[in-house]
Amino acid sequence: MNFASDNTAGIAPEMLQAIIQANEGFALGYGNDAVTRRAEQRLAEFFDHEVAAFFIPTGTAANALALAHLCPPWGAVLCHAESHIVTDECGAPEFFGGGLRLVPLPGEAGKLSVATLEAAIKRYSGHRPHQSNAAVLSLTQVTEAGTLYRSAEIAALADVAHAHGLKVHVDGARFANALERLNTSPADLTWKAGVDAISFGATKAGAMGAEAVVFFEPPMTEFLGERRKRAGHLLSKHRFVAAQFEAFLTGDTWRRLARHGNAMAERLARGLTAAGYAPVWPVEANLVFALLPKALDARLKAAGATYYIRNSDFLPAGMQPADDQMLVRLVTSFATMDAEIDRFIALVANK
Amino acid sequence: MNFASDNTAGIAPEMLQAIIQANEGFALGYGNDAVTRRAEQRLAEFFDHEVAAFFIPTGTAANALALAHLCPPWGAVLCHAESHIVTDECGAPEFFGGGLRLVPLPGEAGKLSVATLEAAIKRYSGHRPHQSNAAVLSLTQVTEAGTLYRSAEIAALADVAHAHGLKVHVDGARFANALERLNTSPADLTWKAGVDAISFGATKAGAMGAEAVVFFEPPMTEFLGERRKRAGHLLSKHRFVAAQFEAFLTGDTWRRLARHGNAMAERLARGLTAAGYAPVWPVEANLVFALLPKALDARLKAAGATYYIRNSDFLPAGMQPADDQMLVRLVTSFATMDAEIDRFIALVANK
Amino acid sequence: MNFASDNTAGIAPEMLQAIIQANEGFALGYGNDAVTRRAEQRLAEFFDHEVAAFFIPTGTAANALALAHLCPPWGAVLCHAESHIVTDECGAPEFFGGGLRLVPLPGEAGKLSVATLEAAIKRYSGHRPHQSNAAVLSLTQVTEAGTLYRSAEIAALADVAHAHGLKVHVDGARFANALERLNTSPADLTWKAGVDAISFGATKAGAMGAEAVVFFEPPMTEFLGERRKRAGHLLSKHRFVAAQFEAFLTGDTWRRLARHGNAMAERLARGLTAAGYAPVWPVEANLVFALLPKALDARLKAAGATYYIRNSDFLPAGMQPADDQMLVRLVTSFATMDAEIDRFIALVANK
Amino acid sequence: MNFASDNTAGIAPEMLQAIIQANEGFALGYGNDAVTRRAEQRLAEFFDHEVAAFFIPTGTAANALALAHLCPPWGAVLCHAESHIVTDECGAPEFFGGGLRLVPLPGEAGKLSVATLEAAIKRYSGHRPHQSNAAVLSLTQVTEAGTLYRSAEIAALADVAHAHGLKVHVDGARFANALERLNTSPADLTWKAGVDAISFGATKAGAMGAEAVVFFEPPMTEFLGERRKRAGHLLSKHRFVAAQFEAFLTGDTWRRLARHGNAMAERLARGLTAAGYAPVWPVEANLVFALLPKALDARLKAAGATYYIRNSDFLPAGMQPADDQMLVRLVTSFATMDAEIDRFIALVANK
Repeated sequence: MNFASDNTAGIAPEMLQAIIQANEGFALGYGNDAVTRRAEQRLAEFFDHEVAAFFIPTGTAANALALAHLCPPWGAVLCHAESHIVTDECGAPEFFGGGLRLVPLPGEAGKLSVATLEAAIKRYSGHRPHQSNAAVLSLTQVTEAGTLYRSAEIAALADVAHAHGLKVHVDGARFANALERLNTSPADLTWKAGVDAISFGATKAGAMGAEAVVFFEPPMTEFLGERRKRAGHLLSKHRFVAAQFEAFLTGDTWRRLARHGNAMAERLARGLTAAGYAPVWPVEANLVFALLPKALDARLKAAGATYYIRNSDFLPAGMQPADDQMLVRLVTSFATMDAEIDRFIALVANK
Repeated sequence: MNFASDNTAGIAPEMLQAIIQANEGFALGYGNDAVTRRAEQRLAEFFDHEVAAFFIPTGTAANALALAHLCPPWGAVLCHAESHIVTDECGAPEFFGGGLRLVPLPGEAGKLSVATLEAAIKRYSGHRPHQSNAAVLSLTQVTEAGTLYRSAEIAALADVAHAHGLKVHVDGARFANALERLNTSPADLTWKAGVDAISFGATKAGAMGAEAVVFFEPPMTEFLGERRKRAGHLLSKHRFVAAQFEAFLTGDTWRRLARHGNAMAERLARGLTAAGYAPVWPVEANLVFALLPKALDARLKAAGATYYIRNSDFLPAGMQPADDQMLVRLVTSFATMDAEIDRFIALVANK
Repeated sequence: MNFASDNTAGIAPEMLQAIIQANEGFALGYGNDAVTRRAEQRLAEFFDHEVAAFFIPTGTAANALALAHLCPPWGAVLCHAESHIVTDECGAPEFFGGGLRLVPLPGEAGKLSVATLEAAIKRYSGHRPHQSNAAVLSLTQVTEAGTLYRSAEIAALADVAHAHGLKVHVDGARFANALERLNTSPADLTWKAGVDAISFGATKAGAMGAEAVVFFEPPMTEFLGERRKRAGHLLSKHRFVAAQFEAFLTGDTWRRLARHGNAMAERLARGLTAAGYAPVWPVEANLVFALLPKALDARLKAAGATYYIRNSDFLPAGMQPADDQMLVRLVTSFATMDAEIDRFIALVANK
Repeated sequence: MNFASDNTAGIAPEMLQAIIQANEGFALGYGNDAVTRRAEQRLAEFFDHEVAAFFIPTGTAANALALAHLCPPWGAVLCHAESHIVTDECGAPEFFGGGLRLVPLPGEAGKLSVATLEAAIKRYSGHRPHQSNAAVLSLTQVTEAGTLYRSAEIAALADVAHAHGLKVHVDGARFANALERLNTSPADLTWKAGVDAISFGATKAGAMGAEAVVFFEPPMTEFLGERRKRAGHLLSKHRFVAAQFEAFLTGDTWRRLARHGNAMAERLARGLTAAGYAPVWPVEANLVFALLPKALDARLKAAGATYYIRNSDFLPAGMQPADDQMLVRLVTSFATMDAEIDRFIALVANK
């Protein structure tokens, strides 16, 4: 009953196989190899657009590199207060970005609204050179609440951002899950909606460690190669990270892996609802949040279930946990088994 | 005839197998797993000393993390002018170190002498707060010239460094090659000789991407975990980088892999010498430098040989290449085949 | 009718005289002079405590140097959402602090409460190394709302901070105004209440440009001299900044200058209240905030009054300006004249 | 006998008077005042060119701001090994520049040659993204050896620099001394010779603390205001730093002050030469370097003379001091008195 994170799973067979296959013979290092060229090509096809792609091993680095490149040190990145860049990256964006500032904003179910964005832009514009001005909007897709932005929602936010000179970044650590669920095209969810750059993650989706910083206007990436290198993120045996991406985007691999994770979350949500613990937010991808009694939590843990307790600040005032409750986050993945879900739900149901 | 770098080789079978094996079941992310505990234990046994180890995917990051931790932003790192941190990391030490300074020093055959070190410490001490003061000595083992520091040489340098309050770091991207050749113990070449921290590389030795920042006084590493995280170098599926290290240090894997690379370099050196192109520096590990005629270089390249031309600044005044010569660097690895060497030498010999 | 800021005033005669006097003969640069020694001595007497003091020309630099020294790059500084370090320093703390994070907190009338602090510490502790942990509490005295922290309030906050390992910093750009009004001792308002370091400003109080970063535990300031130097804030003709401080702290200069500014603010507040525009917050120093009709604002501006409009986010929900109102900030100083106040009030009263 | 530095002098009467005069009435802070506008206008007239100017209190900050603006974090600044930015700024350029690199180059009498520059550019170009590429050439005028670059020399260096995409910066802490001596125009020594930006100093020339970062292509300075602000170098009572510059550039003030310092250095040089201690480098401005016997040094110090001993690395191999000698640096200024020189020379002559 492993629901701690999608990164507790190992490597999906397709991607492990790709690593093994890439291990044939010699290849120049640092991305000067055929596998890398093919992976870049796959990304361009996937997004149906010219791209400049930078493969690296972690999502934190992907976000930090993208933000540092989009936002000057004296600029501000507008983002959700519960976003990973705010809560879980130990200041990586500030470090990579020479002391840029993250501006945490509120938003229901992990999502920013146009009104909130407009107010924030108004607040963080002008008064130069005294105030860090808003320079980037960063959205998370799948959000930290397990919800999704639709194309039209992204477009509405991006329009406001662009109208004020901000660039738009997406933290897509679980982008495949979003895509699978929304049944729309990668293009629709990114550049067609106004996204300038995405941190596109394969790790949570099944890779060993493979993320791509993708820009849709390649000329914007001048010197991003230098940023990656001096951050120690240009892998010498680069073909192996590229190979994971190539496999991920070959055929329907990414979709199959994401579909399974999403389906497992739905199964979990159904079970919890039936047991009287309906998720606090719509379950739109592979994350399920529920308020559970502390006694039940103890029982689940005793039975071997793993998952994390989340800060209840995340919940609006009207949804705060009672004294004997806690907000738990359950994450499924390509590797989650039906039996895990069923055993968990059985434990829950047996109140 | 792949002599461009030891990172053009793929993954050694032992380490690939370790990755495959680590892919069983679920494990908590970020190093909270059993494989990581075992790899740490292996490192402690290897060095015969308590260690604090931080596994990461690249050598540039290993150096930059170690130096940033050992040297304050207003400090200076004394190092060889041709060291990798100076010539090949795009300012990573300065970036991680908040603007610290590298002081490039001369030295024959890639090695720093005690006299050079003493003069540099004298020069970069005092005159506070106007001058960046020397805070760290960084040595490269195997040096960029393919030569080695013996334990006694390291101890002599470290004694001077410590006497003036400097810490001692080793860039050990090819440490296994040094160790194999010197037939001494890891302890003798590090902490017993006064080394405070080493960037210990497995990648060039056969890993897919696995380096360890190792400190011999664990209390010195407070907040190094934060440094790693905010640099985006804490892998979520951490078990896979740890597994590579575990395999590397199990039995005589590291020694066998290094021995092959070293032996191939010797074979190459013998052939070059016989053909009248004796290496410019002692061949003590898996790097061979020779002055070759440009015509020969063209012929070798045409035949498919890959290798890099090195800046001749590296050579002392008396050894500068003639107009029709160039300094070439040939690197062997665990994956180099006898046949490659023999074919290369045949081409060379056929002047 | 100059109410834009206390920095629109010039240099108080006592401090200008000190500059002129310090211009006798030659003196070693960079603080190695007799005037600097005397100013340091004055500061120690003023605070009735051993101090380490660093004189610099701006308050932004004073805050940034102090915070960078107290907070590691991976740490967080807890502070009021409207504090100068958040709103008016263009990311100086982040820049000096290698990418540290400011955590803006709410608080009535510019002040942080113990409950808010406790909740923030709880939120920003643990989850290492993923989360930037709270490392410093920064208070502003006089607050940006023109209110004051009493000694006991500071002590209560500092106790909580220290109990969790945080250091306590005070942005004292208007510290003299606070001191004069509270009629307490500098010691009571700082180290006796648990303050570790204060940015003590003389500029707004009448200097040309003179601030002191003061630490009460001198051993804590190791390498702060290097921080100042590499930030370009070690003045070569240092005696002139020190001379301003010496004059400021000689006799009752600081108190007289502050008293005048405070008295002028009171006069302004009385007039506004009488005219039906009672200040929105207690007027405890030299800042007055009031909600004025836009028509009145236009009339005052037309008559030559200068002042700034403040972001109404600063006001609680229940105090938001009506559509035809705006929140204005009026600042008085040592140089404000009775006649300015009276003319302003006459304009206001003539509704 | 004050020859320690030109910053041991106080404030020249013209500039002190300007401060006093600027102290009339109120003025908006942060440079939004009439004095600042006039000082900017004076600078444009002085250089006979449109300029963007940023007034700040120290030369270290002027250099660091200019270099950080001209050079990306992954770039390198080519400069003389004995330049102030290398030896005396505690890493300020690296700090402001996000970890940029200074490349110290050799050069006779403090000057870089075209050949040295060409070789350095060749060495520090290409091999991207592994190597920090040369991005800026920084020259010091007056050099640290007290010598001068002629317009034609600057133009020759700048042509090489520009041809390879480098920008050209001048550290002009003693620019007035150079200008006075060369009897050429400010335009000839800067933009007409290819200089992109100059740190133009008034402090050593007689100001209390006033330097200007001057760019000749104003559009290049976008966001330099933000850099200055977040470095804490935007003075609130800005009119006082601007007033110093206005006075400096009004009439022939700068020339008179510089002429005196230069003449005093010549007088000193003549006396030393007559006594058998001819300066080691041409005395072209207000710096005199000589090799003095240690016994004489002791005698001079005992008699109250102040000056600094310089690192003899500065001297070429053939000019190294004998065991009983030391390299001393003597600096004159607008405030040096004939009598000081004469007394010093009398002591020297009395061997």
